[in-house]
Amino acid sequence: MFRDTSAFHDWFADRGRENAYRVTRTPLDRLDGWHFDTGTTNLVHRSGRFYSIEGLEVSTDHREVETWTQPIILQPEIGILGILVKEFDGVPHCLMQAKMEPGNVNVLQLSPTVQATRSNYTRVHQGNAVPYLEYFVAPRRGRVVFDALQSEQGSWFLNKRNRNMIVEVTEDVELRDDFCWLTFEQLGELLREDNLVNMDSRTVLSGLPFLDRPGGAEFGGPAAHHTEELLSWFTEARSRYRLDRRTLPLAQVRGWVRDDELIRHESGRYFEVVGVDVQASNREVTSWSQPMIKPSDRGVIAFLARWIDGTFHVLVQARTEAGTSDVVEMSPTVNCIPSNYRGSPVSQRPRYLDQVLMAPASKVLLDVVHSEEGGRFYHAENRYLVVEVDEDFPVEVPADFVWMTPEQLVGFVRYGNYVNVAARCLLTCMNVGRRVPERALLA
Amino acid sequence: MFRDTSAFHDWFADRGRENAYRVTRTPLDRLDGWHFDTGTTNLVHRSGRFYSIEGLEVSTDHREVETWTQPIILQPEIGILGILVKEFDGVPHCLMQAKMEPGNVNVLQLSPTVQATRSNYTRVHQGNAVPYLEYFVAPRRGRVVFDALQSEQGSWFLNKRNRNMIVEVTEDVELRDDFCWLTFEQLGELLREDNLVNMDSRTVLSGLPFLDRPGGAEFGGPAAHHTEELLSWFTEARSRYRLDRRTLPLAQVRGWVRDDELIRHESGRYFEVVGVDVQASNREVTSWSQPMIKPSDRGVIAFLARWIDGTFHVLVQARTEAGTSDVVEMSPTVNCIPSNYRGSPVSQRPRYLDQVLMAPASKVLLDVVHSEEGGRFYHAENRYLVVEVDEDFPVEVPADFVWMTPEQLVGFVRYGNYVNVAARCLLTCMNVGRRVPERALLA
Repeated sequence: MFRDTSAFHDWFADRGRENAYRVTRTPLDRLDGWHFDTGTTNLVHRSGRFYSIEGLEVSTDHREVETWTQPIILQPEIGILGILVKEFDGVPHCLMQAKMEPGNVNVLQLSPTVQATRSNYTRVHQGNAVPYLEYFVAPRRGRVVFDALQSEQGSWFLNKRNRNMIVEVTEDVELRDDFCWLTFEQLGELLREDNLVNMDSRTVLSGLPFLDRPGGAEFGGPAAHHTEELLSWFTEARSRYRLDRRTLPLAQVRGWVRDDELIRHESGRYFEVVGVDVQASNREVTSWSQPMIKPSDRGVIAFLARWIDGTFHVLVQARTEAGTSDVVEMSPTVNCIPSNYRGSPVSQRPRYLDQVLMAPASKVLLDVVHSEEGGRFYHAENRYLVVEVDEDFPVEVPADFVWMTPEQLVGFVRYGNYVNVAARCLLTCMNVGRRVPERALLA
Repeated sequence: MFRDTSAFHDWFADRGRENAYRVTRTPLDRLDGWHFDTGTTNLVHRSGRFYSIEGLEVSTDHREVETWTQPIILQPEIGILGILVKEFDGVPHCLMQAKMEPGNVNVLQLSPTVQATRSNYTRVHQGNAVPYLEYFVAPRRGRVVFDALQSEQGSWFLNKRNRNMIVEVTEDVELRDDFCWLTFEQLGELLREDNLVNMDSRTVLSGLPFLDRPGGAEFGGPAAHHTEELLSWFTEARSRYRLDRRTLPLAQVRGWVRDDELIRHESGRYFEVVGVDVQASNREVTSWSQPMIKPSDRGVIAFLARWIDGTFHVLVQARTEAGTSDVVEMSPTVNCIPSNYRGSPVSQRPRYLDQVLMAPASKVLLDVVHSEEGGRFYHAENRYLVVEVDEDFPVEVPADFVWMTPEQLVGFVRYGNYVNVAARCLLTCMNVGRRVPERALLA
């Protein structure tokens, strides 16, 4: 237990000193254990496990262009991301872990209690068992607060999902090295710091509101739209649009170039596929190599927000990405890498992007940089923003958008494949420790 | 408006006399407009539209056998099944249609207000439009009560979904030939008659409980399990099991034989693919031919039900079918064609089937025969049952099963891909007009 976050920071810095990590960029054709398969041309591990980088052809009527090809990660197995919660002196705490991931800009970030691939929990690595995994695998002790299959980055992963779980226990829990207990308020503070609370933590914490509502009471007070209207808006979008995908041999993606070093788009946009060699003193396996996705630039993940009849609402987008498993998911108002659109005609720029980027400081309710999953994405940072708009901003919005309360959006998080990872992470930044819309209320 | 269901029956019989229908079994190789494609060997329409019969290879760890191949219907487009609701003298009525479908044993059944394929509604503004379709296509008048993408028969359809909608209006609605207004009580009575209320009506009516709960209040009183526990049970099943599918050329399905007449399994089990020529005086197109799936025998769709601490519960199964889009859906306790298992070892008989079939009459709360969708399935009947078990029946059940209240199950109907078509149809038989568990209460 920490009396404040500065005590946490001392502990966290200590964790960094206790353990030795080294991440080295390595050409793809010299990655130990990985090769471009002579038949499929895909980048695969010699064991046939973990994941692979393949080609994907996308055809849709719901993006800037109608069709494109790209490299994409295929990892069909479902991992577990789990956070253990326990009350101390009547205050609930989350068991968090100081964990290195090779893609993190700062190597060490705060991860969930458990971050286990299926290979982990079926012991494929034959490394050390994953600590605390027993709380998340049936039959388990404790009360399940939240348990849903949730999608991950659709731009880089095809149909990827992980199981997000929160389990509450009352029994004594042994505190192991690299783990700590944090209150929701402390987590709320740490979520205001750049690149500290990792993506896996953020997505799981989006289910934290269910801790107090085991019966599953409907969320939210007066809202611009009933739940049925929101569901109908979403069903309409899933029915209206088309998303067809076909995997391709990696060598057949058009517009991408591969040299010995890496794979990149000929325009320099979007992302690169790069390789790393990793050494870590406190991981199940102490050294390994792997390919990763390195985005071309920092992205923006933002909600426009406004008060409607005295209730705080955010503007949700029905968004299609290459790897979205069911045509659309509920996304932040803006979710893109702005520099990908440099020089694009206005009609192709993401809607509301300029509104977010040009907002005066007084209207910015949240502004923090976080990393995407450091196990697959290399130096992948997004600026998470909540920007308040004036009351003259229309309540009537284009068909792909709808105003809902954050509580209504949390209600959809309960069900898989409704809310995308960017929206879940942004909700967590807003909700945990309840910082937004507090500032708006005070203003 | 009918003063009672006997007045309805007079009208319905009249509808049958007013219109002329003829359905003739025809060999597959003489179906007008359809042919076995020389390349793919699949059974397709010359326009490339409507649907096709292809081959499917299934591999799973969640059925009686690990792998099999079968013919299956592919129809990727999403149709609309919609029911219009309007109050007369304070009593809500549903607008239903007397509609012929070639697969119905009795030709004419009661269908939703609108049953439209995408091909139907994309020419909505041209001639011969589907009546009342404007109430279900945006921008629409009226209040959306229920709007969800719902799966259909996974044994015969690959990943097939339709959009189920209920829309309430207050304005005057013109009553056209072949349409009638029915109260929920009248529908409840008609649902007790064999082969009258068609499958499309039954699945849409499963959303009727949302009419009174626009805010989406949580369903159900005290239940054996919280919503979070039920979601966790379901997430566990979706994570634990594997379902891999691969489409095959139809000619490559193993164990199936095709002659000029039809396609059947060499054992005579499961189903046949047959052809029909159809003539109908009151359909958009007055004559056509089509292939259909004809099951080998009548099926059983049944809930075991029991009171737990004074609350009525049904036993829900996490079930995998060949065409299930996401590994499992919530299904009735039993959902099979019993004669497919004649002579099978006990270990391969569907669990609880014998309990359903051997139940004493006093324990049978519901027992009615209904048809599956007559537009694709030929003489496909199922016996819909709810069978009460004694209080000594265990509350602890195998991992694939869970007790929930019908209200909890209705709550999941709101979200697509949770509750399968058999469970939705059975819920409708139980809920509309509220007949079950009334009888159990009186007993």
